[in-house]
Amino acid sequence: MLSNHLHNGLETARLVWSRLPNSEDGDFDAVGISGKSDGGRTESLDYEVIENFAYREEQANRGRLFVMYQVAVKWFFALLIGIGTGLAAVFINISVENFAGWKFSLTFAIIQKSYLAGFVVYILFNLLLVLSSVYIVTQFAPAAAGSGIPEIKGYLNGVDIHGILFFRTLIGKIFGSIGSVGGGLALGKEGPLVHTGACIASLLGQGGTTKYHLSSRWLQVFRTDRDRRDLVTCGCAAGVAAAFRAPVGGVLFALEEVTSWWRSQLMWRVFFTSAIVAVVVRTAMGWCKSGNCGHFGSGGFIIWDISGGQEDYSFQELLPMAVIGIIGGLLGALFNQLTLYLTSWRRNYLHKKGNRVKIIEACAISILTSTISFGLPLLRTCTPCPEVDPASGIECPRSPGMYGNYVKFYCSKDQEYNDLATIFFNTQDDAIRNLFSAKTLHEFSAQSLLTFLVMFYTLAVVTFGSAVPAGQFVPGIMIGSTYGRLVGMFVVNFYQKLNIEEGTYALLGAASFLGGSMRMTVSLCVIMVEITNNLKLLPLIMLVLLISKAVGDAFNEGLYEEQARLRGIPLLESKPKYEMRKMTAKEACGNRKVIDHTRGGGTLVIGLMLRRHSFSEFVKPVSSRGLSIEDIHLSSDDLEMYIDLAPFLNPSPYVVPEDMSLTKVYNLFRQLGLRHIFVVPHASRIIGLITRKDLLIEELSISGFNRKTQRRDKRTTRSAAAEDPLLDGLLHDNNSSSRSS
Amino acid sequence: MLSNHLHNGLETARLVWSRLPNSEDGDFDAVGISGKSDGGRTESLDYEVIENFAYREEQANRGRLFVMYQVAVKWFFALLIGIGTGLAAVFINISVENFAGWKFSLTFAIIQKSYLAGFVVYILFNLLLVLSSVYIVTQFAPAAAGSGIPEIKGYLNGVDIHGILFFRTLIGKIFGSIGSVGGGLALGKEGPLVHTGACIASLLGQGGTTKYHLSSRWLQVFRTDRDRRDLVTCGCAAGVAAAFRAPVGGVLFALEEVTSWWRSQLMWRVFFTSAIVAVVVRTAMGWCKSGNCGHFGSGGFIIWDISGGQEDYSFQELLPMAVIGIIGGLLGALFNQLTLYLTSWRRNYLHKKGNRVKIIEACAISILTSTISFGLPLLRTCTPCPEVDPASGIECPRSPGMYGNYVKFYCSKDQEYNDLATIFFNTQDDAIRNLFSAKTLHEFSAQSLLTFLVMFYTLAVVTFGSAVPAGQFVPGIMIGSTYGRLVGMFVVNFYQKLNIEEGTYALLGAASFLGGSMRMTVSLCVIMVEITNNLKLLPLIMLVLLISKAVGDAFNEGLYEEQARLRGIPLLESKPKYEMRKMTAKEACGNRKVIDHTRGGGTLVIGLMLRRHSFSEFVKPVSSRGLSIEDIHLSSDDLEMYIDLAPFLNPSPYVVPEDMSLTKVYNLFRQLGLRHIFVVPHASRIIGLITRKDLLIEELSISGFNRKTQRRDKRTTRSAAAEDPLLDGLLHDNNSSSRSS
Repeated sequence: MLSNHLHNGLETARLVWSRLPNSEDGDFDAVGISGKSDGGRTESLDYEVIENFAYREEQANRGRLFVMYQVAVKWFFALLIGIGTGLAAVFINISVENFAGWKFSLTFAIIQKSYLAGFVVYILFNLLLVLSSVYIVTQFAPAAAGSGIPEIKGYLNGVDIHGILFFRTLIGKIFGSIGSVGGGLALGKEGPLVHTGACIASLLGQGGTTKYHLSSRWLQVFRTDRDRRDLVTCGCAAGVAAAFRAPVGGVLFALEEVTSWWRSQLMWRVFFTSAIVAVVVRTAMGWCKSGNCGHFGSGGFIIWDISGGQEDYSFQELLPMAVIGIIGGLLGALFNQLTLYLTSWRRNYLHKKGNRVKIIEACAISILTSTISFGLPLLRTCTPCPEVDPASGIECPRSPGMYGNYVKFYCSKDQEYNDLATIFFNTQDDAIRNLFSAKTLHEFSAQSLLTFLVMFYTLAVVTFGSAVPAGQFVPGIMIGSTYGRLVGMFVVNFYQKLNIEEGTYALLGAASFLGGSMRMTVSLCVIMVEITNNLKLLPLIMLVLLISKAVGDAFNEGLYEEQARLRGIPLLESKPKYEMRKMTAKEACGNRKVIDHTRGGGTLVIGLMLRRHSFSEFVKPVSSRGLSIEDIHLSSDDLEMYIDLAPFLNPSPYVVPEDMSLTKVYNLFRQLGLRHIFVVPHASRIIGLITRKDLLIEELSISGFNRKTQRRDKRTTRSAAAEDPLLDGLLHDNNSSSRSS
Repeated sequence: MLSNHLHNGLETARLVWSRLPNSEDGDFDAVGISGKSDGGRTESLDYEVIENFAYREEQANRGRLFVMYQVAVKWFFALLIGIGTGLAAVFINISVENFAGWKFSLTFAIIQKSYLAGFVVYILFNLLLVLSSVYIVTQFAPAAAGSGIPEIKGYLNGVDIHGILFFRTLIGKIFGSIGSVGGGLALGKEGPLVHTGACIASLLGQGGTTKYHLSSRWLQVFRTDRDRRDLVTCGCAAGVAAAFRAPVGGVLFALEEVTSWWRSQLMWRVFFTSAIVAVVVRTAMGWCKSGNCGHFGSGGFIIWDISGGQEDYSFQELLPMAVIGIIGGLLGALFNQLTLYLTSWRRNYLHKKGNRVKIIEACAISILTSTISFGLPLLRTCTPCPEVDPASGIECPRSPGMYGNYVKFYCSKDQEYNDLATIFFNTQDDAIRNLFSAKTLHEFSAQSLLTFLVMFYTLAVVTFGSAVPAGQFVPGIMIGSTYGRLVGMFVVNFYQKLNIEEGTYALLGAASFLGGSMRMTVSLCVIMVEITNNLKLLPLIMLVLLISKAVGDAFNEGLYEEQARLRGIPLLESKPKYEMRKMTAKEACGNRKVIDHTRGGGTLVIGLMLRRHSFSEFVKPVSSRGLSIEDIHLSSDDLEMYIDLAPFLNPSPYVVPEDMSLTKVYNLFRQLGLRHIFVVPHASRIIGLITRKDLLIEELSISGFNRKTQRRDKRTTRSAAAEDPLLDGLLHDNNSSSRSS
């Protein structure tokens, strides 16, 4: 019934105002506000509007039972999101590790005979993988490029970017990131996994993808945008939980970084999803341990376990740690600024020239990366192996193709290793493991670390923004742990103490760079602890993060905020601008005319409805293309028709008085996740006042015990509520206040 | 100037309405709403009201520089709160451990000769400590009784309980909890530490305590209630961080459990406080390790380190773990219900009879607890020591007064130990350590565990609500780990696997009971991980928590919510009641008349101001007694005077239209932490509409680079904002819409 209305009416909603039969003064105008699409971006429906519709409809049609069904479906979907994202993460991990494993063992086998042949094979292998990735992305899923986190943040803030949650984006993201990460580029798979989780969640919420006829009416219980956003929040958490095997970190990431609000109901469901992911990933890894997954399977559930590292620290060490924090803040802010330059240049010049340029660019970066990571270690002279305690399990030099430190690469003597190759000519995971490793003092020379830092930083900046799925977490950890280990080396030399581990400083460096670039706090802290399994370093990680974030904030915004701003996504920062304090709501709403047609000199605001471009009962098809507005053809008769838009009208949108401080309006937007608010004149009369007590309705179905207790305990419990009984309010209308002249 | 007004005017504010010179129609009434005190509870000032005042005043007087000073002071206070709470926690810990250490070594020394003499000494020692505690609380600081968390939750929700943040409450809490915990009662020191942190924070925010002339005008920069609440949130986090040495858990506890909103600015500061606490506690513990703190000092930073426990688990184990979750939910819900009964009985009958009854009650509980914990192990026959690997460091039987398992108590033979005494005749910390311990299979018999479970559960229920500072965390962990270990024993016997550890099940049991009673999720999870240092069990802890919370929620509310309800504190739950969906704002506001005096038939709402009972520029003296309303004597001339209340008026309170769904109103209250909201008629005209883009004001001071980028990148970045320029809105007024008739 509704969809009939909509098929006929959505276009006309632009032209024809609804006549509402129950309006007092005869002929009023509904308010239509244009959600005009600009730059490929369409505005999403307002939360509250749809929420309100859905509630009304539910109440009318189905009532409490349907709500219970809906809750059950929500939890079932949270389960499915957990399983789906967990499996996607396992698939990506297995694929990447296997490609990388084949690549390195093949190259190692060939360089035993000829370094040149090995070099060529290495470059071609990488090029092929990167080419597959960039081809998938450019030809098939353009929205899969980049990390996707700024776009998801935008979506959860209420701004849709075209195609960001399509099924093809999901596919492009999964296979694209296998290619780009397996191809050895200076990027990670963590950001893309967050996007993958969000896509899975969104597709589930939609009941499948309409394009491939996979959708099911059975599961389309989510009428409200808010439910969809909640699902996507779950998906984000699942992505982080799967990427870092950090379930609590995932929950906090989703709530701190991605959404701007915090509801304990939602947290509860997000928590469940993360737990499911953890169980799925753990089970899969247990299965892989028996050798079912090729090169994958040697690692534990903790990605970079440094539980054997430094346990204690002296007060003097706080100074170098603070230095790490400052370096992290500076390098992180610089990274954000450089990538902002480069991305804006790419968007305005390079990527306008079409897909061929994007492909050539990615291939060029791949060749550059391969050349540097293979070539630079060749220039480095090898170091004699240190005396290694055989009980520690560390081998020097290690045999090729194995995980571990002390790789032998282009060394003339037997008992030598190439320290630069140990981190450069390696998968990023293993390089980080080596940098974090304890009991390997003086493994790296300062010269090698510095070379690596400069080259990798440059590569990470250049790679950022190319047309492949790309995360910034792992590159950030690489960069940070390199300078962290550098500082650690100086500390070891300077303080001459035995219990200082360079690996611990590498970990702090990683935390500081991520803090300086992404500006996260609690979630990053928890993620760092979960991926390294060393709780004892927690206070230090917290302090380093505090310093690096403070330093970074002095220069610019966080990486995701900068990128979102560049893409024109209107994210609201957590802190309102200082100038807002002096402004009123009236000043902010500008000179737009809201009510276009006034008739008979009198208008009354009936409510808020948004001009939409889509059908299907106002649920926006974010994941599938749906019907375009251009596809609907209306005859001139159609355009003459009136439709009653009352069912789609939000009769009680949020309002603020005209002279309210803009700071307060800002907080209202952020805390409630609003997209629109009406500015109204100072209220001419007051109907009443609601206090907290009015909202403490005792359910009639409350347990018998409670009622008894309360009756006995009347003085303390019920006295407050008894003063202003709710039922009285329901029975009597308050007409004592008069209307303004 | 303002305080002058207030001294004269506050009482009269009840009687005299302000004449506002700038009102349009001549003679209007300001709206005064009574925050009537009932049951010893006074309502606090509304957030937004005071916030608004403070902003205006700042802008007028001092501007940007003052705001910077304020921010600096906020961070400085966060530092002080961290140091203060950390030191308080260290002091309490050292005192408790030393009292307990003396007690047990003395008793052990005496029972070598006579068990009866030992028994008497043990009872007297405990009685003395409990007596000191209950005496301090009843005579000196009545608000220090109980855990304090429900009251702090209430305060942060906007409801003040008399005396909850006084200086004497702080003192009473610290010394009272030393007595009650040291005296061996079935309660913990964690809840009181949260309250301690909150008190420290509140006193700092007030600039000291006025009563003891310790206040300083220099630090009284916090005009706004919101700043005070933020400080108290920091204090709560610091309390948890100090109690469990769990900094991240503290942050999450403060944000999930205590406050109902989530602002990233606040989180950042809370995070800093927690980090400071961690550093302070760690430093103090390092200092104690060299033997400066008597019996305290043998433990590490992690309270119950079980990093050596079970690492892997099989699928079959998920079933017993789910059983643990269900038991936790059931026992937790039962605990909440029983304590609710008992507390309500105490409040209505027992404690009405005065302080003497409270003292006698606490002493009786102390004697009962001592008798049971000493007497029951006497009835238990000893078990022969198992063969212990000497390398594991476990001793059987351990020498008296030492920490560890296998205590020898009333055993006839040399190589025997008493398993019931190992957990009962011990400090709670050590008992938990023994229950969590790995590599001690079959240490406890099922009979002993069951006896302990029943007795301790009963004692915990009985002790709850007596007039001593009491936390429920540690008793909860005791109860949970006991049945967890019981289930673990059956699993070990049933599955006959070698890698199953009973201690791991004990940990899961503890998590399940806390989840079933307190209903926390993420914060509890993180706290459990931080106190046991075993990240690998995280997915299991999450699943157990999910089950136990779900089971518990089926029966009743969480412990703190139940207790808050009993005390008449109107906390808003996270989820609005189902009935609210069908209700409108108008229905909820009841039949109170808001505007009492109408003159000339016309009224106009000027704003919101609250009737207050305190002076000092509307900052409520929560921590000191301040001036009572009865102390102000006004002559009849005074009562004839008019004062201008305009400076204290919030001219733009939040408003909702009369037909808004109550669900939406509820969310507004919770998310913004409101206490009052006006219900107004449907807006007669609309001045404008604010969208997210209107709130994205570019600062003029933005970096040169950004502006350049944006100019170049106009199409993508600025186009959106350019459509509705804010400056236009500032220059032109929108008068196109007409007023309603």
